[in-house]
Amino acid sequence: MDPAVPLTPEACMAADANDPLRRFRDEFILPAGVIYLDGNSLGARPAAAAGVASRVLEQEWGTGLIRSWNTAGWFDLPGRLGDKVATLIGAGPGEVVVTDTTSLNLFKALAAALHLQKSADPARKVIVTERDNFPTDIYIAEGIASFLSQGFSVRLIDAELPLEAALGPDVAVVALSHVNYRTGSMWDMGATSSSIHKAGALAVWDLAHSAGAVPVDVVGSAADFAVGCTYKYLNGGPGSPAFVWAHPRHQDSLWQPLSGWWGHARPFAMEDSYAPAPGIARFLCGTQPILSMALVECGLDISIAAAAAQLREKSLALTDLFISLVDARRGEHPLELITPLDHARRGSHVSYVHPEGHAVMQALFARGIIGDYREPGVLRFGITPLYLGHLDVWHAVDALFDILDNRLWDSPEFHTREKVT
Amino acid sequence: MDPAVPLTPEACMAADANDPLRRFRDEFILPAGVIYLDGNSLGARPAAAAGVASRVLEQEWGTGLIRSWNTAGWFDLPGRLGDKVATLIGAGPGEVVVTDTTSLNLFKALAAALHLQKSADPARKVIVTERDNFPTDIYIAEGIASFLSQGFSVRLIDAELPLEAALGPDVAVVALSHVNYRTGSMWDMGATSSSIHKAGALAVWDLAHSAGAVPVDVVGSAADFAVGCTYKYLNGGPGSPAFVWAHPRHQDSLWQPLSGWWGHARPFAMEDSYAPAPGIARFLCGTQPILSMALVECGLDISIAAAAAQLREKSLALTDLFISLVDARRGEHPLELITPLDHARRGSHVSYVHPEGHAVMQALFARGIIGDYREPGVLRFGITPLYLGHLDVWHAVDALFDILDNRLWDSPEFHTREKVT
Repeated sequence: MDPAVPLTPEACMAADANDPLRRFRDEFILPAGVIYLDGNSLGARPAAAAGVASRVLEQEWGTGLIRSWNTAGWFDLPGRLGDKVATLIGAGPGEVVVTDTTSLNLFKALAAALHLQKSADPARKVIVTERDNFPTDIYIAEGIASFLSQGFSVRLIDAELPLEAALGPDVAVVALSHVNYRTGSMWDMGATSSSIHKAGALAVWDLAHSAGAVPVDVVGSAADFAVGCTYKYLNGGPGSPAFVWAHPRHQDSLWQPLSGWWGHARPFAMEDSYAPAPGIARFLCGTQPILSMALVECGLDISIAAAAAQLREKSLALTDLFISLVDARRGEHPLELITPLDHARRGSHVSYVHPEGHAVMQALFARGIIGDYREPGVLRFGITPLYLGHLDVWHAVDALFDILDNRLWDSPEFHTREKVT
Repeated sequence: MDPAVPLTPEACMAADANDPLRRFRDEFILPAGVIYLDGNSLGARPAAAAGVASRVLEQEWGTGLIRSWNTAGWFDLPGRLGDKVATLIGAGPGEVVVTDTTSLNLFKALAAALHLQKSADPARKVIVTERDNFPTDIYIAEGIASFLSQGFSVRLIDAELPLEAALGPDVAVVALSHVNYRTGSMWDMGATSSSIHKAGALAVWDLAHSAGAVPVDVVGSAADFAVGCTYKYLNGGPGSPAFVWAHPRHQDSLWQPLSGWWGHARPFAMEDSYAPAPGIARFLCGTQPILSMALVECGLDISIAAAAAQLREKSLALTDLFISLVDARRGEHPLELITPLDHARRGSHVSYVHPEGHAVMQALFARGIIGDYREPGVLRFGITPLYLGHLDVWHAVDALFDILDNRLWDSPEFHTREKVT
């Protein structure tokens, strides 16, 4: 065990007192009595959100009405917020838009990649993705391949078929999640994009579990496309719109089939034929949910204000602490760590498999420790350095072992299954 | 002129005093000094919206956090709101979901229609739509046809190629807007769907300008699919999510390519292959903007509380009044009505072409009369019977003629072009 990891509550308190990110905790409003370890699923509410919501509701919608498209800058919102996301993922201004959902943006990115390959090498018709990817990414790839038919297909990589073995001359595009939603393991984006390119394919990255959580450098990694989510580590609010990025080398040759009015070159000329707007704006489609989108800015501004290096350092310190605390108390409990120990391969959450994982998580919920459960048997604990401290982690692990040591999960109330956990 | 149309302000006031829908005006908060004739573009703010927004923000997001997927019913929202939309468009429970944007839902509906034709008659590869349709509908049809290539194409109908002439044996699907966004003219949905079916094609209706504005009976009209908007006459808030309906005869054979997690049969089993949820739920894709979606309910509840017949009667009375007041004062002004006089063919807005339409609308804006402008030269006045009265219409037309009679539009300040009007 790393001797630098503080394992007592006193040492945790001391570490929190010296935490250079401590002030960001006050930018969020969290309920009393809760330790929130699910910021990787839905981020906490920024204190600024209430003011923005009331401004959009009362001034922009209520008073400005239709005029707010101009006067409140609604029309510029996807690009303006996109520029802020860009600073967090190593992209440049004008390269990102905030719009639609991660699933839909992945559809656009995959379709755009297939379109590029159609001229470059039309025999390439396979979309490669991971069997352990977040399922919606697989479903979207399946949807595109089925829709196109004509030999298009999806190939899943896993332990049996590692990435290198999957990259045949038939592969058009590879879609990977930078950080795995279940295990928290992270790809090396630069090296992997380079392998994909050497094999003649294009690289699409899903940043849902990395934007705002780990260092991301899409341009430096020479990735082709990236999509991601604003409601996890970026704290944009439930279901807030997602983002999409394309490398500058592609931006003016992009085409994607979800071609709606907002992506038109002259959206108010009411032309009867589609002409794409310059660059990434052609990834816009229909009218966006302005209220949910406006709130994205609150979370983005906090992430931008925090130093990226300090965020990563604290995230690793807290995930190390979690793992060390569990190691110290694990004993004979069937608790298997599935998150990489190697810092270079670890995202910002820690996951364990336990045969009674679902009931254990329900028992944690009952005492205000909110992580989440993922099939099969995975207890997942999100570590959000913006609003969590060392002592929070200590309390969470202490509660976990109180539940495990005393079999408190073995109670009927913790064995009901709700739809979403 | 119809002698029943009250043309004096006194007669308008008397008509307002007897208006059975008058109490619904109080359900909305409108800015002082504004007559809002653009509810066909962005509906007014329901008074209840602030309370719902604060509940979602503070209780559901802030306190419930991730638990709100269950405890606040987020997961059920698209279907629960869909059931409310269903009552307004003649559909049954379980037939509609609220989700994504109108453009994206049209993409899904067209793709589903093409998928049905693929088994029924694979030679049918043409999507027919209107040259004068809302442009995004054309762009989406183009996007699908280009993406599929292999002979798929879009055919535009207009005066040169009327609907009947366009319906050859190659037509798979016809996508029409029930009420035209520009002229306000309305198709006979039943008769037209029947013609489309006789020609072997499927009928997709865009209800953006009809849901909440005119009587709609999608099941009675035997339509195949319908999509629509909640932020216009349904007052859901800027860019609030759209809806999609499929006829019960199709619901279990539906397939569409935007196949995301929320449309999966077992979304939390994290399976590595897509299996569609039963019925219309398979039109769901990614995670929805909960705050923007929750607000949709405020507007829906008002529309449901108002009697549909009274809404239609008042809408026609007010559009008649608008037209009669203009007729009485038109004189030599080059103001051409492009909205049908026939009630059976009229939606709930009134449009005139004027060579200086853009400047005229800017001059109206400047005195708080908010209609909107659409290329080319169209002054568009939305008539929302829920919150407009006869006297509002009288004042609007009076202001219009003050501007026209005195050439007040002919001032440099009214000749700047903003991005959105």
